[in-house]
Amino acid sequence: MSERILNFSAGPGAIPVPVLERARDEMVNWQGAGMSVMEMSHRGKAFLSIAQATEEAARKLMGIPSNYKVLFLQGGASLQFTMLANAFLNTRAEFVVTGAWGQKALQAGKMVGESHVTWDGKAHNYDRAPKFDSLDIDSAPDFVHITMNETIQGVDFLTDPDINENIVCDMSSCIASRPFDVSKYSLIYAGAQKNLGPSGVTLVILSEDFLATQKEGLHPMLDYRVQAENESMYNTPPCWGIYVMGLVFQHWLDFGGLEAVAAHNEKKAKLIYDAIDGSGGFYRGHAQPENRSLMNIPFVLPDESLTEKFLAETKANQMVELKGHRSVGGCRASVYNAFPMEGAKALADFMGHFARQNG
Amino acid sequence: MSERILNFSAGPGAIPVPVLERARDEMVNWQGAGMSVMEMSHRGKAFLSIAQATEEAARKLMGIPSNYKVLFLQGGASLQFTMLANAFLNTRAEFVVTGAWGQKALQAGKMVGESHVTWDGKAHNYDRAPKFDSLDIDSAPDFVHITMNETIQGVDFLTDPDINENIVCDMSSCIASRPFDVSKYSLIYAGAQKNLGPSGVTLVILSEDFLATQKEGLHPMLDYRVQAENESMYNTPPCWGIYVMGLVFQHWLDFGGLEAVAAHNEKKAKLIYDAIDGSGGFYRGHAQPENRSLMNIPFVLPDESLTEKFLAETKANQMVELKGHRSVGGCRASVYNAFPMEGAKALADFMGHFARQNG
Repeated sequence: MSERILNFSAGPGAIPVPVLERARDEMVNWQGAGMSVMEMSHRGKAFLSIAQATEEAARKLMGIPSNYKVLFLQGGASLQFTMLANAFLNTRAEFVVTGAWGQKALQAGKMVGESHVTWDGKAHNYDRAPKFDSLDIDSAPDFVHITMNETIQGVDFLTDPDINENIVCDMSSCIASRPFDVSKYSLIYAGAQKNLGPSGVTLVILSEDFLATQKEGLHPMLDYRVQAENESMYNTPPCWGIYVMGLVFQHWLDFGGLEAVAAHNEKKAKLIYDAIDGSGGFYRGHAQPENRSLMNIPFVLPDESLTEKFLAETKANQMVELKGHRSVGGCRASVYNAFPMEGAKALADFMGHFARQNG
Repeated sequence: MSERILNFSAGPGAIPVPVLERARDEMVNWQGAGMSVMEMSHRGKAFLSIAQATEEAARKLMGIPSNYKVLFLQGGASLQFTMLANAFLNTRAEFVVTGAWGQKALQAGKMVGESHVTWDGKAHNYDRAPKFDSLDIDSAPDFVHITMNETIQGVDFLTDPDINENIVCDMSSCIASRPFDVSKYSLIYAGAQKNLGPSGVTLVILSEDFLATQKEGLHPMLDYRVQAENESMYNTPPCWGIYVMGLVFQHWLDFGGLEAVAAHNEKKAKLIYDAIDGSGGFYRGHAQPENRSLMNIPFVLPDESLTEKFLAETKANQMVELKGHRSVGGCRASVYNAFPMEGAKALADFMGHFARQNG
């Protein structure tokens, strides 16, 4: 690890070091093109080959069927909340709210049209997700929105939905962290800055059938059909982000694909959950065990002063961004795909040490 | 120049080599932070210092008054067309159309409300811009939209507007290419990928007074007030683009500021315009002399086969992306701020040689 710090940030998060090294080496002169990727015409052969390679790697890594479009947009999940509601909410949408991001998606829906809350975890302080087969969905909504992994609460469904409705899914903080069945979804979106690359590019995967249900008369930049017809190049796309994202996809393909990524992530998360569960109540996790996120692990200590002490001592040990979100409090360890195993081990070891010293 | 190619792309365009070299050197470990800029929490001290430095350098370089907000948004000028019309078009907007981008801004305005064409250069095939004092503007529009430099037609007003109206200006392809008086504008926007940095970040400069006229009830990502109140961090901003943009601003400050940049650009453009004017009609420029862009220089050759030959021979001489836009035809040399003087000289020399050989 040498000069690299252990970055537990909830996002932007860690990027694989070999990807950074390649981006560094290609910075001034990409593969003999005589220019940086940042300087290339997005309509020139060199950049088109990069964008195509990114899409192909995305399709291969995540098993995206050919009847799904892959788009590289801008504005993050927050712009998707607005864009998807504007585009697909005709009569009524259903929202399954498992945390803070689901609430934001719901708010955007309400600004557009009838937005019904199918299920809301508020009564349980957003510590769980419902079983999909327990959801009672009113007939024929335009779509059902879910947030697969709630970054702040660390709550994840952990399974693909199996519902005969158009599922629209915010996968920002868990995409490509494990295998998932794209065919169970109508639209998947994810800001890149957690598992896929730098902020500023948003991956959208959507089925052609669902796209056909889109409303007419949308502004072009907010129109999925326009973006799809122009292969994400209605205007200049976020070229650098698309390039780095492609390197990240290829990195995980070389790693062995999403099965291997999932095994790696489960092992990392287990180290930290074991430190929580083995602390005799010194640390308490937020999520119910059956919905524990493998990406974001919020936990609290016995009191505020111990939390402060913990944050100061971890920081002194090169572990940063462990402060929890104010709405949940305490600490949060985000361990995205590129976060190293030895980092999870270092935190788990420190947690044990700290609990013994202060418990 | 050694391994660097001469990149005449209309955008994304050249970035100063020292900026690329610094981005390369800081890629894996930014200033001892132990991580890349792409991996930093946007709410952490390190990235906040980067964003603040970018804003300060922008203010210093472009002389942005303190009663103007500086925002770093996403979606390029194309999303701005929609966002500004949604936000500020209440009763009527005026559009001065000097080329293809102005037409697109007008189209977005028409989707929102009454959008009146103040002036349109179509009858002259968009080869000129009007004098500001000749414009006949109906009373009290919400704003008057202008495109300072039309990238495709190579037509530039070349002066700040002096009109007692709210001027909204697309400056994508000429921003920071010369001094300009921000106080003459209510809102300026520019995709970064021509003069400011990589694609994926959009610079917006807007007056607090104009911001106060914004409509209520907008979606947060499309609401300038929300973006301003959150200092462009309502959600995760395009961190990498903000970082590179800051390096670019600092580069031109070190170069001597916009007066020095303008002198450099005038000299570069003059080399190429002189090659056109001195060719005895072999090359013909598109724009009228008084509106010749210093950034984008479209020109045509006597016929299609000579154009093809010219493009092939320039390419063989490491001069790329010289093909003109299909709507104007011929060739286009885009020579943004970071395009080197020796590149303009090389093209001008080649143009003279080619005209003598083929004229």
